[in-house]
Amino acid sequence: MALLDRIHKPSDLRTLSDGELRTLAGEIRQFLISNVARTGGHLGPNLGVVELTMAIHLVFDSPQDPVLFDVGHQSYVHKILTDRAGEFGTLRQRGGLSGYPSRDESEHDWVENSHASAALSWAEGMARAFSLTGRDDRTVVTVVGDGALTGGMAWEALNNIAAEPGLPMVIVVNDNGRSYSPTVGGLSKHLSGLRTDPRYEKAMENLKANVSRAPLVGRPAYDLLHGLKIGLKDVLAPQGLFSDLGLKYIGPIDGHDLQALVIAMRQAKGFGGPVIVHAITQKGKGFAPAENHEQDLFHAVGRIDASTGEPLTPPVQATWTDAFGAELAELGAERDDLVAITAAMLHPVGLGRFAAAHPDRVFDVGIAEQHAMGLAAGLARGGLHPVVAVYSSFLNRAFDQLLLDVGMHHLGVTVVLDRAGVTGPDGPSHDGVWDCSIAGLVPGIHLASPRDAVRLREALRRALDIDDAPSLIRYSKDKLPDPIEAVTRSHGIDLLAVGERPDVLVIGYGQPAGTALTIAGMLGERGLSATVADPLWALPVTDPLLRLAAAYSLVVTIEDNQVVGGIGSQLQLAMNTAGIDVPVRQFGIPQQYLPVGTRAEVLADVGLTADRITDSIVAAWTGLGHELPEPERTLQVR
Amino acid sequence: MALLDRIHKPSDLRTLSDGELRTLAGEIRQFLISNVARTGGHLGPNLGVVELTMAIHLVFDSPQDPVLFDVGHQSYVHKILTDRAGEFGTLRQRGGLSGYPSRDESEHDWVENSHASAALSWAEGMARAFSLTGRDDRTVVTVVGDGALTGGMAWEALNNIAAEPGLPMVIVVNDNGRSYSPTVGGLSKHLSGLRTDPRYEKAMENLKANVSRAPLVGRPAYDLLHGLKIGLKDVLAPQGLFSDLGLKYIGPIDGHDLQALVIAMRQAKGFGGPVIVHAITQKGKGFAPAENHEQDLFHAVGRIDASTGEPLTPPVQATWTDAFGAELAELGAERDDLVAITAAMLHPVGLGRFAAAHPDRVFDVGIAEQHAMGLAAGLARGGLHPVVAVYSSFLNRAFDQLLLDVGMHHLGVTVVLDRAGVTGPDGPSHDGVWDCSIAGLVPGIHLASPRDAVRLREALRRALDIDDAPSLIRYSKDKLPDPIEAVTRSHGIDLLAVGERPDVLVIGYGQPAGTALTIAGMLGERGLSATVADPLWALPVTDPLLRLAAAYSLVVTIEDNQVVGGIGSQLQLAMNTAGIDVPVRQFGIPQQYLPVGTRAEVLADVGLTADRITDSIVAAWTGLGHELPEPERTLQVR
Repeated sequence: MALLDRIHKPSDLRTLSDGELRTLAGEIRQFLISNVARTGGHLGPNLGVVELTMAIHLVFDSPQDPVLFDVGHQSYVHKILTDRAGEFGTLRQRGGLSGYPSRDESEHDWVENSHASAALSWAEGMARAFSLTGRDDRTVVTVVGDGALTGGMAWEALNNIAAEPGLPMVIVVNDNGRSYSPTVGGLSKHLSGLRTDPRYEKAMENLKANVSRAPLVGRPAYDLLHGLKIGLKDVLAPQGLFSDLGLKYIGPIDGHDLQALVIAMRQAKGFGGPVIVHAITQKGKGFAPAENHEQDLFHAVGRIDASTGEPLTPPVQATWTDAFGAELAELGAERDDLVAITAAMLHPVGLGRFAAAHPDRVFDVGIAEQHAMGLAAGLARGGLHPVVAVYSSFLNRAFDQLLLDVGMHHLGVTVVLDRAGVTGPDGPSHDGVWDCSIAGLVPGIHLASPRDAVRLREALRRALDIDDAPSLIRYSKDKLPDPIEAVTRSHGIDLLAVGERPDVLVIGYGQPAGTALTIAGMLGERGLSATVADPLWALPVTDPLLRLAAAYSLVVTIEDNQVVGGIGSQLQLAMNTAGIDVPVRQFGIPQQYLPVGTRAEVLADVGLTADRITDSIVAAWTGLGHELPEPERTLQVR
Repeated sequence: MALLDRIHKPSDLRTLSDGELRTLAGEIRQFLISNVARTGGHLGPNLGVVELTMAIHLVFDSPQDPVLFDVGHQSYVHKILTDRAGEFGTLRQRGGLSGYPSRDESEHDWVENSHASAALSWAEGMARAFSLTGRDDRTVVTVVGDGALTGGMAWEALNNIAAEPGLPMVIVVNDNGRSYSPTVGGLSKHLSGLRTDPRYEKAMENLKANVSRAPLVGRPAYDLLHGLKIGLKDVLAPQGLFSDLGLKYIGPIDGHDLQALVIAMRQAKGFGGPVIVHAITQKGKGFAPAENHEQDLFHAVGRIDASTGEPLTPPVQATWTDAFGAELAELGAERDDLVAITAAMLHPVGLGRFAAAHPDRVFDVGIAEQHAMGLAAGLARGGLHPVVAVYSSFLNRAFDQLLLDVGMHHLGVTVVLDRAGVTGPDGPSHDGVWDCSIAGLVPGIHLASPRDAVRLREALRRALDIDDAPSLIRYSKDKLPDPIEAVTRSHGIDLLAVGERPDVLVIGYGQPAGTALTIAGMLGERGLSATVADPLWALPVTDPLLRLAAAYSLVVTIEDNQVVGGIGSQLQLAMNTAGIDVPVRQFGIPQQYLPVGTRAEVLADVGLTADRITDSIVAAWTGLGHELPEPERTLQVR
């Protein structure tokens, strides 16, 4: 790694010869493979942008020229080139190197991350701010995937950026034909068309012939540009959709040809206005197991063998995703009216089996959650029952459509949320801790947070029979727990443990049901008698649950959702409205952006463990002026 | 109105001669003007689509072929043609004709309304459902404005629709160059370019020459189509952005030339796949005061004089919007770093004065709330302080960006929400009753619901000084109340009335502060002593407010937001967490979609009046086992 050791800031790249730069690209790839194999992470996307990121840092002057990465999971090369190679051993670990840009880590990271398609809005804002404050010698560079361009927010930004010819922005479209899955829709076909347009082939050949002897660094910029313009003029012809919008377009460029990339970036920088640089890259480039991987080209991996790409961690236990996928496939065989929608994540959300059996009944809409939900409304209006399967965190983008298009029209649409609750290494933008709070605002919604696979299957079957309101089922990224059988089921409520005295009612919603049982045991050891309830359907709050709550001295709710506006809050409100003034204590994710770590680490950090909750309950109990009885065996174990 | 009286269903149109159809168009326009002048409503948009709607109903077979209107405020002509002309006297009134499509009103209304840009998603869903269930002889017709195409959801839908050449869908782009304001961005320029392309001029001339003698109805369709194809072939040449995406495109068509429209619609229907019909219309067509109106071409009006267009209702009282607009303009003069963002509603949200004074510091992004918030994040990251001014209901579309792009990045962005709370005649999709619940989920957000203009100005100034978190200020469509002075201000809490005994603490957030004072008076008459508090900043909940709450026997919150997940819930949660178990009763908008009516009617319908709340408080008081003392004068009036 001789060369890589010499790179501590982007400008160090400019000390290298063309040959050394090529060698460096190889070193970076090896570095990525060996490191991510050890830690897990977004391997495929980063292998695809090695030359692209080098070209950006050769041509632009970061951090003066901010470099933004849409979503941010393709920023590893950028991190390596900005003096963070030494920290890759801690990638995506608690207190370690973030898997995304991080302002705490480096002045080269201007924006951290959020969800796909947002970076162009950021870029326009920053470019406008620079322009208004006399700093318009800066160029804002944004790297955005072709997949992200299927998201409406990117369109909204492009529509605005196109109308501002003076904003110094370079938009690098990292076109690998994929998001997680192959990119879908008319735009994708259009980009493919550009790729294979013979005029570009010819232009690229001319380019190579004319400039192949010009070194990338070490010559005055003017000379180089002058020489290059001859070769590039055909490439710059107005073309296609971007040009229709009014955006300058350069491309397509071979995204692994450093020389061509540098030429294109220099040309783009020279414009002084918004320019698209369309680079064709290969996700997983340089790592055979990734290049040949059918599903997602190693989009994100756990620990793997660095030569074969085989997972090193033990075979994965059964997951919630599997349980859902199997059940939905079965339901698909039973019901002709069942259709499924995914937003560019067919396999990650478990729709693979359903899709294989019913390819005409599954719709991948791209990274387009708004449309996914609007499409569901239309499908339901046409008489079908759609299941919209997305990650919890991405429901944020479809709240308006769930509320108005689905809910207000009283349509039977089932939303299934994977990765609900704390997720861990991806950090706060991917934690699924808001879905109960926003979905819970929808009048008439039915919300289930099943505690195990048996209840998941029950909930899914019931949800598909609700045809006049949306239903929502959420579950964790955590391992699927063993089934937790109820002591008794009454009025739609499962009692998982029944205390002998009506001291404390502990309601565990979903994954925390197991924690609730542990807590009941701990409370028993401290002299308090606890009943543990799973209402199965958390919303709407039912009268039987209110009657149950009214019978206890203290009600405790535990949920794997932000505690503000959560399910516990809805129970408390219903109790207030019903005049049930039993004290309530709500436990859930505190109102903060969560740190990175494993799920267990994060839950411990925020105090959502059986120990800590038990302590709080006991403190609440004594705070209310109750006696703490002598410990006894009050928990009737199932 | 001889002809109009003969139209009771769309097919009745086909009994009329060409001349009669022209006369009918005139009658419909007169009908719209005279009726909407009496009731108020969306006059401009409907005057623009008279011929367009007639052409659709001449060519397609509603309700077999569903006709969808994006947003839905341009469906008046459709209502007239589907036997609802007689009900226009009750337009947008309680229990009357909806200002939008309504499934309760007619089988011709498939979708009611939601927010802009959603209709194409619905249409794709319905077309897919028809296709999957063997009903693909139906064509789904969607009318969408050019303004709505600036919204990302429309792009997401187009990207998907383009990839399905077999879906029978006709997308009528009603291009009047406006949303409320002139349409912005690259797309708008592109559409203008299409309009003035000489090839189309020529094609349209050919068309006229060839087919001008063909009657619109009464001849076999085949003959007519055969004849028309000659004239239309140039018009159908692949062209521009839509064609780049892979969508068939017909246009541009003069949207007031019924014959040309019918020809285009027939051609489109014949394709059997998605087709764009690009119609150029004039908002306000046929009503001189609207045609000449600079700002919004009479997008929506109150009661007006049917000949002059002058408002009939008395001069409007001072509004919240005015108060905000004046203060922001002043702040703009004081602070160079202040910038403002609007989503196609510069004047409705009160940014006119600021824009006139600082045209380079205001950005109209189109109907693109997601981008508005992402742009704000970028502007803030670049060192400016953006104010995002939108209607409360439209914040739904920007929740993800407020949470992650702004909030997670700890950026100083101020969101100002007009039309918060119950709005009335526009119905549930435009009620602003969710903003506190969703914005309240954002960690660190500062939320103010000022009670009068003085507090609005205070809040705005303070918000602009918060540079490490988002702030939000919301206010009502209701009239601006006279200033309500506090008895005392302590620890950031205004006490508007101080009871002699600590019986009931009534917290009125924003517009309901006046109601809270009335309630305190009524409680006094019934023997209860009430203190009325306005915490000024509703979120975060402060320790002084908790201490205040702890001192009373009953805490009551009143807010003009859905009670679920509202500000009252946050106070209750904070009280639980702090171990303050004083009973709480939360009053707000119940969890339902609200009926249409005036604001006062709707508030009465849902029980959010001083009388009803007072009764509930007294009932809660006695329900808690408290005595009801003899009435006395407990209210210390300021």
